[in-house]
Amino acid sequence: MSLLRRSLLVDGIGELFTADTDGAFSESGILRGAALVAEGDRIAWIGPSAEAPQADERLDAGGRAVVPGFVDSHAHLVFAGDRSAEFAARMNGEPYTGGGIRTTVAATREASDVELRAAVARLTGEMLRQGTTTVEIKSGYGLTVADEARSLRIAREFTGETTYLGAHTVPVGADADEYTALACGPMLEACAPHAKWADVFCERGAFDGDQARAVLTASAKAGLALRVHANQLTAGPGVRLAVELGAASADHCTHLTDADVDALAGGDTVATFLPGAEFSTRSPYPDARRLIDAGARVALATDCNPGSSFTSSMAFCIALAVREMRMTPAEALTAATAGGARALRRGDIGRLVVGARADLVVLDAPSHVHLAYRPGTPLTETVVHGGTTVHLKDAR
Amino acid sequence: MSLLRRSLLVDGIGELFTADTDGAFSESGILRGAALVAEGDRIAWIGPSAEAPQADERLDAGGRAVVPGFVDSHAHLVFAGDRSAEFAARMNGEPYTGGGIRTTVAATREASDVELRAAVARLTGEMLRQGTTTVEIKSGYGLTVADEARSLRIAREFTGETTYLGAHTVPVGADADEYTALACGPMLEACAPHAKWADVFCERGAFDGDQARAVLTASAKAGLALRVHANQLTAGPGVRLAVELGAASADHCTHLTDADVDALAGGDTVATFLPGAEFSTRSPYPDARRLIDAGARVALATDCNPGSSFTSSMAFCIALAVREMRMTPAEALTAATAGGARALRRGDIGRLVVGARADLVVLDAPSHVHLAYRPGTPLTETVVHGGTTVHLKDAR
Repeated sequence: MSLLRRSLLVDGIGELFTADTDGAFSESGILRGAALVAEGDRIAWIGPSAEAPQADERLDAGGRAVVPGFVDSHAHLVFAGDRSAEFAARMNGEPYTGGGIRTTVAATREASDVELRAAVARLTGEMLRQGTTTVEIKSGYGLTVADEARSLRIAREFTGETTYLGAHTVPVGADADEYTALACGPMLEACAPHAKWADVFCERGAFDGDQARAVLTASAKAGLALRVHANQLTAGPGVRLAVELGAASADHCTHLTDADVDALAGGDTVATFLPGAEFSTRSPYPDARRLIDAGARVALATDCNPGSSFTSSMAFCIALAVREMRMTPAEALTAATAGGARALRRGDIGRLVVGARADLVVLDAPSHVHLAYRPGTPLTETVVHGGTTVHLKDAR
Repeated sequence: MSLLRRSLLVDGIGELFTADTDGAFSESGILRGAALVAEGDRIAWIGPSAEAPQADERLDAGGRAVVPGFVDSHAHLVFAGDRSAEFAARMNGEPYTGGGIRTTVAATREASDVELRAAVARLTGEMLRQGTTTVEIKSGYGLTVADEARSLRIAREFTGETTYLGAHTVPVGADADEYTALACGPMLEACAPHAKWADVFCERGAFDGDQARAVLTASAKAGLALRVHANQLTAGPGVRLAVELGAASADHCTHLTDADVDALAGGDTVATFLPGAEFSTRSPYPDARRLIDAGARVALATDCNPGSSFTSSMAFCIALAVREMRMTPAEALTAATAGGARALRRGDIGRLVVGARADLVVLDAPSHVHLAYRPGTPLTETVVHGGTTVHLKDAR
């Protein structure tokens, strides 16, 4: 072990869920009797516990399961305002149309930088305490050049995975084509320096296929990598557009045609499921089995946002994926870790392998199955983030 | 305030959810601008924050919502062994029949008192950290005279709400009528000193109506109050038997006839929903609206057990009740607090009123709606149990 970087030995591991299945999402990738050593922020060694080298610190997992830190590849965290009343009304029978986004836009524009930063800090802290060690954060509640750029500047203080989502919804009173031109022009120009990704809500009532294509094409020219809100409410053109343009991820994938399934199975675009949205809008869940069986690569994320899915719990999404989408617990956890990493085109996270970042969670459970077997129950015993043990109270 | 008992002022309350609706489960029972003073273990004063008296200690809720501590009126916590593999198999398509109980029985008989006590301590600690301040605990994984009595002795170390459930399932190799006679005789005699309640699993494959009646009648004669596992898997005689015998609660109520609904609406027996069981067995949810609209009194509980519902989260059950059973967030929270209290015939818990026990939860949210609006997300900021602030780390 280096003398320059602190090393950490994790042993006493009941089950080491590496998620290292090369994207095959099989039941493999589980080691027993293994230990892990981090050196600095990277995993330096994995092997039989009896052969583990010495380290500066030791974390005894006490027979518990160790899993990769969750990779939440889809979250909308830069916002102000409260939409609990809209949620309660929807639970009382009102449909979800996405129109409520405008409520959040008005509150977000009104909020100060300090207020927005505090809101993001609160939610990212909440996520870290629940084992999420990487989170993507989108803009999309500003919808002016200045407010979108501000959202991304603030998001970038918390993650490298920032996504320009100026094309989240057409602002009240604006013309859709004129707003699309803004999102492809001055808004993109102001936002691109703060973003890694571009995204668009391709949906009836938001942006149609031509408008979405214009935003994505302009964003790619500006150096941003692509992801798409696709086929959430209707079987629109979003999924095929995402695959055609080489987007890293098509998110939601709730309403798919045969052609959409074929496109995802044949392309390199990850299908990211967001079952928290179906839960909180009382909508049908995506057909995960159909996509997995067709050979598509899949991910799970929270979609954390104040309108359609205000959960920050990846474990809850795993439980839903198992109960409602018939994924196995191992498939769901792999989708929430290695799958999310692939949806962010990151090879250095989401799997517990030598050379990867030392981002892991000690579960208060003997097996990863408990994430679905014990729904709603907090199971985060300890989080290690970049080789450093997070004290969960401090993360608040 | 008395000089002899410590007093605690809770102010800065954004919303005080008293659950004091006299069992009507309406949207009322919510106070704004209120403060609360506990003296010893009781609530001594509730009123406008500006008029609050001095107290020895002060807890500033910081604008957050304050709700009653959850009353989990149905839990099976005295067990050993792991059934995560059975869970995973069921999620893969195998049906739930209740037969797996026998797996837990074998492991529980094998376990030492120390092991069983540690298991109960772990789960009750987990519950308290999530805001559950009262929990009922059943026997039912011993199924011998000695093992049932042992389970209840251990349960009683953790709660006054102990339930004799010798008639949980017929042990492997036993004759149902002979076992029923044991449960009505020597087993009841050994268990009654440690129990407040008696319960029976009245279901096809477990105990039929006549056998259930025998156990309940004998238990009542032995001084135990009654509750019944009723109509979980089939529309059997359990609900009507519960109402006829004056049981405090009929639990599950998933498959009901018109006559069952009429009986619950006309009687004093609470219908206790356990949606965690439907979640984890992938079964249809009870029709809560039908019962509420008919005038029945309802409660929500976890059914925490290793086979059919291994959640300990009342918040998760509230979210399910709203999403899947169309209860409003206020109805669901009232059912999880005042409803649970009624199902335990306890007037001193489940509501935040003067004279009641000072059992409350400060939510990390401005409104009780967030319990359903933020599913899976831990929202327990602070727990006050009997007037004393629980340090959540210590509760582990």
